Amino acid sequence: MDLNSDLGEGFGAWTMGDDEAMLDIVTSANIACGFHAGDASVMRRVCERAAERGVAIGAHVGYRDLAGFGRRALDIAPEDLADEVLYQIGALDAFARAAHSCVRYVKAHGALYNTAAVDPEQAAALVEGVRRYHTDLALLCPPDSEMLRAAQAAGVPAYAEAFADRAYTPEGRLVSRKLPGAVLHDADEVAARALTMATTGEVVDAEGGKLTLRADSLCVHGDTPGAVELARRIRELLTESGVVLRSFV
Amino acid sequence: MDLNSDLGEGFGAWTMGDDEAMLDIVTSANIACGFHAGDASVMRRVCERAAERGVAIGAHVGYRDLAGFGRRALDIAPEDLADEVLYQIGALDAFARAAHSCVRYVKAHGALYNTAAVDPEQAAALVEGVRRYHTDLALLCPPDSEMLRAAQAAGVPAYAEAFADRAYTPEGRLVSRKLPGAVLHDADEVAARALTMATTGEVVDAEGGKLTLRADSLCVHGDTPGAVELARRIRELLTESGVVLRSFV
Amino acid sequence: MDLNSDLGEGFGAWTMGDDEAMLDIVTSANIACGFHAGDASVMRRVCERAAERGVAIGAHVGYRDLAGFGRRALDIAPEDLADEVLYQIGALDAFARAAHSCVRYVKAHGALYNTAAVDPEQAAALVEGVRRYHTDLALLCPPDSEMLRAAQAAGVPAYAEAFADRAYTPEGRLVSRKLPGAVLHDADEVAARALTMATTGEVVDAEGGKLTLRADSLCVHGDTPGAVELARRIRELLTESGVVLRSFV
Amino acid sequence: MDLNSDLGEGFGAWTMGDDEAMLDIVTSANIACGFHAGDASVMRRVCERAAERGVAIGAHVGYRDLAGFGRRALDIAPEDLADEVLYQIGALDAFARAAHSCVRYVKAHGALYNTAAVDPEQAAALVEGVRRYHTDLALLCPPDSEMLRAAQAAGVPAYAEAFADRAYTPEGRLVSRKLPGAVLHDADEVAARALTMATTGEVVDAEGGKLTLRADSLCVHGDTPGAVELARRIRELLTESGVVLRSFV
Repeated sequence: MDLNSDLGEGFGAWTMGDDEAMLDIVTSANIACGFHAGDASVMRRVCERAAERGVAIGAHVGYRDLAGFGRRALDIAPEDLADEVLYQIGALDAFARAAHSCVRYVKAHGALYNTAAVDPEQAAALVEGVRRYHTDLALLCPPDSEMLRAAQAAGVPAYAEAFADRAYTPEGRLVSRKLPGAVLHDADEVAARALTMATTGEVVDAEGGKLTLRADSLCVHGDTPGAVELARRIRELLTESGVVLRSFV
Repeated sequence: MDLNSDLGEGFGAWTMGDDEAMLDIVTSANIACGFHAGDASVMRRVCERAAERGVAIGAHVGYRDLAGFGRRALDIAPEDLADEVLYQIGALDAFARAAHSCVRYVKAHGALYNTAAVDPEQAAALVEGVRRYHTDLALLCPPDSEMLRAAQAAGVPAYAEAFADRAYTPEGRLVSRKLPGAVLHDADEVAARALTMATTGEVVDAEGGKLTLRADSLCVHGDTPGAVELARRIRELLTESGVVLRSFV
Repeated sequence: MDLNSDLGEGFGAWTMGDDEAMLDIVTSANIACGFHAGDASVMRRVCERAAERGVAIGAHVGYRDLAGFGRRALDIAPEDLADEVLYQIGALDAFARAAHSCVRYVKAHGALYNTAAVDPEQAAALVEGVRRYHTDLALLCPPDSEMLRAAQAAGVPAYAEAFADRAYTPEGRLVSRKLPGAVLHDADEVAARALTMATTGEVVDAEGGKLTLRADSLCVHGDTPGAVELARRIRELLTESGVVLRSFV
Repeated sequence: MDLNSDLGEGFGAWTMGDDEAMLDIVTSANIACGFHAGDASVMRRVCERAAERGVAIGAHVGYRDLAGFGRRALDIAPEDLADEVLYQIGALDAFARAAHSCVRYVKAHGALYNTAAVDPEQAAALVEGVRRYHTDLALLCPPDSEMLRAAQAAGVPAYAEAFADRAYTPEGRLVSRKLPGAVLHDADEVAARALTMATTGEVVDAEGGKLTLRADSLCVHGDTPGAVELARRIRELLTESGVVLRSFV
């Protein structure tokens, strides 16, 4: 099983999260590329640290919206989106290669992730940007999404991720954050769910039923001290239980 | 002899210069990478057109200053500058490679060009960014500059450029634009100087003496209709006179 | 009748339209405030020129999206939108007051204009930003829009504008630009429509019927040489026909 | 005596310092205006909180350089600098007025502060931007600086600030941060210096001599938990010692 996390989200004088701590926990790092967060110096540092630890480097591509942290839907033309995805991958890969690694996968950030999960046109544009970089660059997707289908249609290697700290509907969709119970806060429960997901591919859904959820990677968060601690606990429980942690690519 | 020009300097809804016309004239294109000008869509288009015509693609790297078009000196830390240079090269190379070409050289833009010509520290940072991308990526420099020396010291292939429409001091420096006669406007004279530079490596300096000016490339401008016409005239005169035009890399 | 136009849309080294020419034609200037276009120096210059000619100064507020020229829908939170509208008005008013004038009205630009025309929430946020600057600052709106209704509900003086070069449906909506005949190109026809709108408040709709269209202002464009010429023709025809041109505020 | 501090330095999803805590300590708030830090929503919030507490609102104007937090010297043309200063003041004042207060003074940030302290041309441009907003808007300056002289020459009310935690040369200049002992870390010593500055206008310089330092305001920092604690201690010692704290304007 793979653990992925969003890293390199500082910008200039501003910091976010604890990149160093998380790089000791995850096996794949989604590194911001300067459009929604990150700058050249942050990208270099996180690529170097990831490469040293053997953590797989992923390009965390987002809308060009620093002020909104890429969390606001932007009605960008598909051809422009494909270009901006390609730009971000190329920029990050320069640092990955300088650190004797390379960008091994792409993950969409924030509003782009949410939009490309359900909108076939934005999904296709995202995939086109990835495919143009090179044809075997992987895309990390929500399961059963337009993004996943667009990747498969274009021959781009697609992988699915799940969230141990989020409730799922019986159909396998994330419960909206606006509803109660959407985010799980009990650390023991979250770690136990992560273990079940990793070993059985199943999880209890929001209505108490059994949901099959094929995930190649589990996404963990690192933007608060508590989040880092939870991520560490998930890693420890998985490792103690004999789950081998390694990047999905 | 090579002819180079600054291209891809539009941004979003704003255009600058006539990229299409210039790509039929030059043999090397210095393409803006989004920091002082250019955006992902402009970069893609210019890379595609350059690749189609066999024009060499160069990364025209600049300070992160869209509002100032990279023309204002910025006291950036050398390690940050090296990172930003690397970022820009990587971003452009993604488009160059998608167009089945690649970034073959780097040229600094505006205030970065001027500063790195005389400041050893910024020159070394620029060169470090280039060298980290890969060790045989070339740098196009002012002749007899700190930039050229820094490149040579680091083992980065360095090439020198000259300007047919600018007056030179007897020491081989450009006459300051603030002085009368710094920029030559007579098209016949400029074209004739280009030919002399290309065939003899010599040019008459601002005091009437003979100056030896070893240049691997001549820089021509394309940001006004008159500039495009002058560039075309230079190309025609060189070609008619038997000078073979091809990229310096 | 008032003629309004979008001005001050340059940015840094990039220019757009012919501000000088248009300021001799219009009675109200919608001046970009730096979010989708414009910078401090452009704003100062256009405010000075407008004030000299007695042209009313309006704040042309837009989404924070220079790369997209404010033409892309952005799902910004309403409270953030109200803050960004207020920011832009304040910034422009500093230049208007330094030129011994003041911002007399606000008009939304691009995607914000289109969204706030139909979305009650964004309309209310736009109006809230205007109202907070001061309570008698006017808002220039599409006729029969959510924006107009939100302004009226908040007690903000609201005015309606029409386009002489656009076809209208029998319901008084603009025919979508995606449909044939949406934009009228015949200069004589456009000028004649402008005159009819100004004198009778009526216009022939896209199906040949008679449409009542109460407009306080006619919007004219200035971003191409042909557009400037057309705007001048409209002004001349109105003036020759005895229509008094003056700002609506 | 006045205590001033740099506030509102977050941007989008990024935070910096503890604005709430500092607003209970200071009597004047230097609020970032969006060029080096701050955005419309941060500006609104800090203006509202400052107005509620009767803290004077100052426009903390900086270079247009979010990536560098305004800490890098930028060779901007003086007329552009004056325009950018005016833009920032106007934008902040919109929020100050909406909170039933107003911008009462201006302070330069970072590299602009340092440059305008010694460069007469940038000092004059800064002052020109302030003066154009209105003629009795104050400028908070380093003592004995070009900035102070430029303000006095232009008839702009000028006030001087001192730093309790910085060593001064016998000539009254700050000891360079590159030298040992430039920044004082002992809280008791710093608070005691603040009290001496406030009550006697004198301070011990770096060579042990007595330095007369006329300051209208003391600058305190709030960007770390320790800094907030130190600022609180200074406030308490001054208050306990009978020094009345109120804004200098």
